Amino acid sequence: MRIAVLGLGLIGGSISLASHASVAAAEVAGYDVEPVAVQAALGRGAIDRAASSVPDALAGADACFCCAPVGALPELVTEALAAAGPDCVVSDVGSVKRVIAASSADPRFVPGHPVAGAETAGIEHARADLFDGATWYLTPGSEASGVLYERLHRLLVGLGSSPVAIDPETHDRLLAAVSHLPHVLANVLVSRVAGLVDGEGLPRVGPSFRDATRVAGANPAIWGDIYAANGPAIAAEVDAAAARLTEVADALRAGDAEAIAAWGRAARSDRARVLATEGAEGPVHELRIVVPNRPGIVAEVALALGRAGVNIADMALAPASDMSSGAITLSVAGDATAARARELIEELGFPVGAPV
Amino acid sequence: MRIAVLGLGLIGGSISLASHASVAAAEVAGYDVEPVAVQAALGRGAIDRAASSVPDALAGADACFCCAPVGALPELVTEALAAAGPDCVVSDVGSVKRVIAASSADPRFVPGHPVAGAETAGIEHARADLFDGATWYLTPGSEASGVLYERLHRLLVGLGSSPVAIDPETHDRLLAAVSHLPHVLANVLVSRVAGLVDGEGLPRVGPSFRDATRVAGANPAIWGDIYAANGPAIAAEVDAAAARLTEVADALRAGDAEAIAAWGRAARSDRARVLATEGAEGPVHELRIVVPNRPGIVAEVALALGRAGVNIADMALAPASDMSSGAITLSVAGDATAARARELIEELGFPVGAPV
Repeated sequence: MRIAVLGLGLIGGSISLASHASVAAAEVAGYDVEPVAVQAALGRGAIDRAASSVPDALAGADACFCCAPVGALPELVTEALAAAGPDCVVSDVGSVKRVIAASSADPRFVPGHPVAGAETAGIEHARADLFDGATWYLTPGSEASGVLYERLHRLLVGLGSSPVAIDPETHDRLLAAVSHLPHVLANVLVSRVAGLVDGEGLPRVGPSFRDATRVAGANPAIWGDIYAANGPAIAAEVDAAAARLTEVADALRAGDAEAIAAWGRAARSDRARVLATEGAEGPVHELRIVVPNRPGIVAEVALALGRAGVNIADMALAPASDMSSGAITLSVAGDATAARARELIEELGFPVGAPV
Repeated sequence: MRIAVLGLGLIGGSISLASHASVAAAEVAGYDVEPVAVQAALGRGAIDRAASSVPDALAGADACFCCAPVGALPELVTEALAAAGPDCVVSDVGSVKRVIAASSADPRFVPGHPVAGAETAGIEHARADLFDGATWYLTPGSEASGVLYERLHRLLVGLGSSPVAIDPETHDRLLAAVSHLPHVLANVLVSRVAGLVDGEGLPRVGPSFRDATRVAGANPAIWGDIYAANGPAIAAEVDAAAARLTEVADALRAGDAEAIAAWGRAARSDRARVLATEGAEGPVHELRIVVPNRPGIVAEVALALGRAGVNIADMALAPASDMSSGAITLSVAGDATAARARELIEELGFPVGAPV
């Protein structure tokens, strides 16, 4: 299969690598406005042919992926569709879908969004397994060719992902709540606290603040595009959060202990419920241990679990303010696996607690 | 020095252990309403004497720490002051200070708050080094005895902490922004998303959601007390955040790209500024690497850094949705140390990027 990849960053580079790894007789032509990215992709063996233009990349292609920032996608998709043959499926990888889906009713166009790879950028972080097990949303229009949709679907399964068809409005609303709202809250939180830094002595803020604000100010260029493209859906989520906050503030001012306690209990069970939908291998358990924060200790714990074949789904090390010790939170999927992990850690001499 | 510790949980137990470790001729009498906690403290060698009541614990004491939940502190402090001799300093460890500080003008009472240990609970997690390098706020009233204040200050330095005097209103406002607001936002976020779980197919939510909501629903009993005691200050912070969110929603709806971009850039520099105040050994660098998520890899990275004496101040592992690979974010303090860490990791074959 001949595949054209337009835009050779993390996602485009990973599509290229994954195609070679798992699609029979894949032949990838790559194009990027930055010649250095094309050279890097050639150097990594991600692409077979460096294309000099969009039409050059599309020559003879069976499938095409447009991998540009959200704001640049409508123009790139239009260009790709103009150059693509009548039997070539054209998709994109934008994380907002309403605008791009509405931009073309061409039966060859099937918009998409792989939920993967937000953590790094650039061809140097591309990898063949980026999409393994990832949800890959597709938002086909009513005119979409069945034959081409099926070809794309099979190709995405070949890349390791699970394609899920969804209408673009639902997609954008979902992502607004799960992904975009957390970024907005992190930005607001960090700015509230930054206002204090220059004034009163700020205590060392600690791990809960670092965790809560890790995504604050994430790549302003990419996120500017996302906010612009999904503005209305994000604004609705932000408004709902603001309204809820105002209710909470009222309850706090009224000293309504029962309402506040009920709210805390609900948040606790809500989080457990949301995370439970995550675990492919059963419910995710969080284990909390306190260890001296000296080099080697995290490794010791990780090794003990590793030797027993227990995989750590998520790990957060929360050091004490002087870095002398730390509380490690480990997420482990599956009841039996979590019980085994607890046993192993306690054998090392560290008592395991649930998070308070 | 004879020290009375009332309440033998994480904080009380750690004060007891730290006293033995570093205060000359320390003799600790411990009391807890739960006999099992007293027995556990004896078993760990944290206390020298199991007291049968508050007055029994205070007999002959030079210093007393009241270590109960915030809501129970006023009564406990009153009881302790009634039993304490004329030359005994009485303090508490509540994380909200306005109410307790106003509850007594006794010159022997010096309210306090060690900023440590929010991550776990219970005597079994107590440790002698819990307060090493931690800020320990003190909110002495205008009647406080100079002699007793100085004794307490020296004792807290002996426990490893850095005592900082602050007025109770400023303390509560500061903690509302840095600690209490993040908890409120996490609760609101998790509840917004939980509302979607039962309806539309939720994509695997990923590490940014987990990080942002790690503290959601933290120990409802303890936090109910904190919300009750610091209600007005938290309400003011929550209102300010809600007002900011409404502005953001308006900018999103208006499609004001420049305002949104400026806001993202400000959040980025705000976070760097806040975290920079953290680093005792220089600015904190965040290094991002992508690794296969198989047992042993985290250990390999941790070991390579450990062997070179590079300490990991903070670590977050963000697995891909299928757990097959993960992005590790490592925080390392100090320019030179971070450069060395980057070198070591790249020698392992993992390219290091900055977070996007």
